[in-house]
Amino acid sequence: MLDANRLFPADGSARAVAVKLYEAVKDLPIISPHGHTDPKWFAENKPFANPTALFIQPDHYVFRMLYSQGVPLESLGVPQQGAKGDPHAADNIDPREVWRIFAKHYYLFRGTPTRLWLDYSFSTLFGFTDRLGPDNADHYYDVIAKAIQTPEFLPRALYERFNLEVLATTDPAIDPLDSHKAIKASGWKGRVVPTFRPDSVIDAEFAGFKENIETLGEMTGEDVTHWKGYLNALRKRREYFIAQGATATDSGHLTAMTADLPLNEATRLYQRIYSGRPEARDVELFQAQMLTEMAGMSVEDGLVMQLHPGSVRNHNSLVYEKFGRDKGADIPAPTEYVRSLRPLLSKYGNEPNFTFILFTLDETSYSRELAPLAGHYPALRLGPSWWFHDSPEGMMRFREQVTETAGFYNTVGFNDDTRALLSIPSRHDVARRIDCAFLGRLVAEHRLDEDEAFAVANDLTVGLVRKAYKL
Amino acid sequence: MLDANRLFPADGSARAVAVKLYEAVKDLPIISPHGHTDPKWFAENKPFANPTALFIQPDHYVFRMLYSQGVPLESLGVPQQGAKGDPHAADNIDPREVWRIFAKHYYLFRGTPTRLWLDYSFSTLFGFTDRLGPDNADHYYDVIAKAIQTPEFLPRALYERFNLEVLATTDPAIDPLDSHKAIKASGWKGRVVPTFRPDSVIDAEFAGFKENIETLGEMTGEDVTHWKGYLNALRKRREYFIAQGATATDSGHLTAMTADLPLNEATRLYQRIYSGRPEARDVELFQAQMLTEMAGMSVEDGLVMQLHPGSVRNHNSLVYEKFGRDKGADIPAPTEYVRSLRPLLSKYGNEPNFTFILFTLDETSYSRELAPLAGHYPALRLGPSWWFHDSPEGMMRFREQVTETAGFYNTVGFNDDTRALLSIPSRHDVARRIDCAFLGRLVAEHRLDEDEAFAVANDLTVGLVRKAYKL
Amino acid sequence: MLDANRLFPADGSARAVAVKLYEAVKDLPIISPHGHTDPKWFAENKPFANPTALFIQPDHYVFRMLYSQGVPLESLGVPQQGAKGDPHAADNIDPREVWRIFAKHYYLFRGTPTRLWLDYSFSTLFGFTDRLGPDNADHYYDVIAKAIQTPEFLPRALYERFNLEVLATTDPAIDPLDSHKAIKASGWKGRVVPTFRPDSVIDAEFAGFKENIETLGEMTGEDVTHWKGYLNALRKRREYFIAQGATATDSGHLTAMTADLPLNEATRLYQRIYSGRPEARDVELFQAQMLTEMAGMSVEDGLVMQLHPGSVRNHNSLVYEKFGRDKGADIPAPTEYVRSLRPLLSKYGNEPNFTFILFTLDETSYSRELAPLAGHYPALRLGPSWWFHDSPEGMMRFREQVTETAGFYNTVGFNDDTRALLSIPSRHDVARRIDCAFLGRLVAEHRLDEDEAFAVANDLTVGLVRKAYKL
Repeated sequence: MLDANRLFPADGSARAVAVKLYEAVKDLPIISPHGHTDPKWFAENKPFANPTALFIQPDHYVFRMLYSQGVPLESLGVPQQGAKGDPHAADNIDPREVWRIFAKHYYLFRGTPTRLWLDYSFSTLFGFTDRLGPDNADHYYDVIAKAIQTPEFLPRALYERFNLEVLATTDPAIDPLDSHKAIKASGWKGRVVPTFRPDSVIDAEFAGFKENIETLGEMTGEDVTHWKGYLNALRKRREYFIAQGATATDSGHLTAMTADLPLNEATRLYQRIYSGRPEARDVELFQAQMLTEMAGMSVEDGLVMQLHPGSVRNHNSLVYEKFGRDKGADIPAPTEYVRSLRPLLSKYGNEPNFTFILFTLDETSYSRELAPLAGHYPALRLGPSWWFHDSPEGMMRFREQVTETAGFYNTVGFNDDTRALLSIPSRHDVARRIDCAFLGRLVAEHRLDEDEAFAVANDLTVGLVRKAYKL
Repeated sequence: MLDANRLFPADGSARAVAVKLYEAVKDLPIISPHGHTDPKWFAENKPFANPTALFIQPDHYVFRMLYSQGVPLESLGVPQQGAKGDPHAADNIDPREVWRIFAKHYYLFRGTPTRLWLDYSFSTLFGFTDRLGPDNADHYYDVIAKAIQTPEFLPRALYERFNLEVLATTDPAIDPLDSHKAIKASGWKGRVVPTFRPDSVIDAEFAGFKENIETLGEMTGEDVTHWKGYLNALRKRREYFIAQGATATDSGHLTAMTADLPLNEATRLYQRIYSGRPEARDVELFQAQMLTEMAGMSVEDGLVMQLHPGSVRNHNSLVYEKFGRDKGADIPAPTEYVRSLRPLLSKYGNEPNFTFILFTLDETSYSRELAPLAGHYPALRLGPSWWFHDSPEGMMRFREQVTETAGFYNTVGFNDDTRALLSIPSRHDVARRIDCAFLGRLVAEHRLDEDEAFAVANDLTVGLVRKAYKL
Repeated sequence: MLDANRLFPADGSARAVAVKLYEAVKDLPIISPHGHTDPKWFAENKPFANPTALFIQPDHYVFRMLYSQGVPLESLGVPQQGAKGDPHAADNIDPREVWRIFAKHYYLFRGTPTRLWLDYSFSTLFGFTDRLGPDNADHYYDVIAKAIQTPEFLPRALYERFNLEVLATTDPAIDPLDSHKAIKASGWKGRVVPTFRPDSVIDAEFAGFKENIETLGEMTGEDVTHWKGYLNALRKRREYFIAQGATATDSGHLTAMTADLPLNEATRLYQRIYSGRPEARDVELFQAQMLTEMAGMSVEDGLVMQLHPGSVRNHNSLVYEKFGRDKGADIPAPTEYVRSLRPLLSKYGNEPNFTFILFTLDETSYSRELAPLAGHYPALRLGPSWWFHDSPEGMMRFREQVTETAGFYNTVGFNDDTRALLSIPSRHDVARRIDCAFLGRLVAEHRLDEDEAFAVANDLTVGLVRKAYKL
């Protein structure tokens, strides 16, 4: 089911070089500096429930495609948690029935990275040799259901089997990080580290914002009724995360807008936000100001800062009302970086102790804005192609549009960014293959020497990510 | 003049697969669900006047390129109908002289799809083996002039020779569809169906808008002085189109903006529009509201809805004043979809009985907005690459940028979208070749199995278009 | 170090055609219609100071990459002239030390065009066969330092060795053009011509704007306190430039906005600008109006008009304060053309005696706006891919996204646009190779006949540039 030379140029000298380069990097450890797996899996180390709960229900890449072709989310047992956050499982759905629906529609994934990731897991983890389809749906289900009850498929065993060197999760600023503490306390050697995600205490439109702020105050003993106390509370939480192994933060905003307000204006802005009576544009302005504050704290405490802007969340009202967030209805929008980032970069972009990793969902910014910015500011690095663009064509466009202006060394290697544990090795494998394919072409076109290509391939796989994320 | 393997990858395993795939689809019937041929041709079935009237004067792809290099439109006999719509032919222009100018400048089309389409027609229909140029201009003219007087070149004979299964025209909402009725009455077996185009009774800046509305009222017996009557009139016209074989509507707006106003606001908005005293932005807002109304009517009556936004019409004032609309001076502009479509998609995007086919002239929206939207909303499908992007590179970019997120099955096959009857088979041939080239690469790079590629090639050629357009 | 077939398709029939095409154009003379070399070099014909002053300190492509990876500009001896324009050399910096820093970081340029340009110079001019690196930094330095003291490396000798047919510089409107006059007076046969750049007397935010206007008045004897006198002064300066050999103007604006104000409004606008009391948006509006005025003067005097919009200048405040303009901190921004250019194009776009060459830093405009505009307006031509996009991938994207709509003949050949004299032949060589690679693919895919490809290759190399720039 998996050709050994998949994703390489189909023929010729570029292919030959790609094959050699891949041979040199394919067995390097996986460093996963940004993702959304659940630390509880590794703390509890329990088996996954069933094939459907493993492959379909948590993966919006999978069920958004089925939904787009008329398959109701209800019929897939996607949890109906509602916009207000009162989750209730889809108890009366038979997971085997869901699997059959999935198998029947598996042809929809032709040409998509989801298909590549799934086939990789099916083949390498479960030994399937025939493509999933309606005829072998039950066979697939049975084999997977049996396998995941074995010790080899417990989360910690998978971590080791995948040759993970480190795995970062993403955790709200007010998360007590109990699972991370439990993992440490367990004596297990795996390295699972948290990432500080402050959105829920920065975005005034986040569900539960006010309660989150109060919790922030309680957790830190700071007086969050005013600006200085709020900032100090965030500083303390960052320290707490660092103590639990965090090396980075992550912010996910609608835009890349940053601001650098005078102290008295920022103070008053926070009062309006905290009091729940923001004026027009205050919510956006506060997020903009907070990006610059987060950058300043990173200069102080060394946490690497990540920004993921540009997603219009919960576009489909009907789906949001019934199923809540993260259900495949987030849609990218045009995103401006040059003017938006100027306040932050003017203040901190030249700081030697600051690493600011920028992502985009708007590929037009690669060559126009991001590569020129990253090829100049010492603090700035470009994150890999993200989300919808985390695919063979998307990764190739990233390299083709970024490298000539920013080089390889202002990028940071690969992020799998996934909630699907089993997809981690397949995603990294796709990234390694595409990087080798790109480098193979540069060598075959005499734009790079072969010895350099080996060095770059290694850097893209492990060197740059270790350095950028301080891992 | 035509190499059998044109447009395929030049060498290697991708080429080999492309050749095999093309062999399987090249002789499938042509389904043309969206275009701008004149139904009168098929109703009257008269010969075309001369080579110039056939190839040059109606084709803005051709004369815009000549004009861009200093050839006056007057010298080409392009009809001077003026902005006010009072057409008068260019009587004193010798069509043979125009043909000579065209032949002399034929080198300008190097590297363009127009060249591919023309060479295909010259070769397959008229048997030419030497490229058109100044030296053989008269020979070309004579051969074509003679051929088009023969029965084999009458419109109905061409329809049959081209192996058309169905051909959709585009017709104003207030068109009586006499030609379509005459075709039916004639007993000819060709299937030429109308498409409901409501722009002239929705866009308040359309020439003759007020008269069009009154005509709409007269044709339907509805009182179009108020909102409800106006909507009912449109409903009746849609029914009339359906009775004449229509399966789809088509709207061409400057933007993709949609709105969902409360009834009393919509009612007042229509009053201002109807009275000819719109306030600022009313014209745009009315178009936005009407897109949502059209979607609602599609849910009711099953007509497939098409939206073609993003063209700034009549950019060149001088050309518009003298020659009128559709003279190669329409220029694409950046087009936003995510926020613009939210009102319509929130209301009808989850409807099982609704098919909404979206086009763009802004390629940046492929991977950023359109593929993510189409990969989620059940009602949404992506139309093929359109107008300036209906070309080998443009089609390839469409597949490369759309497939990974939306898959193949949220697209709808090919539209030739042409006014030039002779170009129909050549345009479909280019599309089939490029799809096979894309699929060939996926197979050669082991991203798709070969048996699947055959299934997809068939779906892209006939399956998806039949299903999406209900043909 | 340089493979004879670099930058061509790696294998197969496209490569074979590319090789043949390149053979036919590689030795054609270099026509450089737009660049930023210093005419004083050719007037004085003195040797360059040292390898660092030649390759590093004037080249923002080089030092921006080093800076992005933490190398201080001070350590490179980049002149600290400050935002106010009081330059002082970095006297206490040892150029050999700078060279060693450069060599140590040479790996950063992997995959960038800078690397291609440098390797070409190192190999063809100085005979190096080993890649630059920390180990051979001193050897490189010694060889280059010795060579550039020889007569073969004097500016005029390099001009001849590079087979330049003409070299255009860029010169402020109020420049007396003394160097150009000295070159002419010297009897040397090289053709170095000025280009009229009016930004410093049009952009009210340009450093020294008011003084520049007064100088303009003094130089021409016109009364620049009012609109008519100001315009006449510009006309006289254009005449002066024409007398010194200029065939073109060049404007570099933040946006592509143009305006066509009634005389009384333009008169009052100039009064506000001249008096130093512009209202909100006056500065931008004045630039917009002046683009249309410049176009009108070009219709009168025949100077070809160039517009380079879309760069946000001096993005990094800290770098600007210390080092001044042109230090690698100019960042492209999204740029709109369709509505922006309408006033100018409606007025002059159909003029037979007007050539308007348009550039962009926003690649999204290639297929969406620029190719459609250039494929229609007789006056309009597209400049080659510019600045950050003047690279193998960038040039290829330009051809792939522009050709199908605008053809080859609405483009104007290559601009090297460089301040680095030694990079001129390497930049033209890259452009010729990429054009041949693109044409090779078209031929191999049977989209263009081979004899036509030879004709086009010649036109892209010399024919189109001579014609467009009237050289």
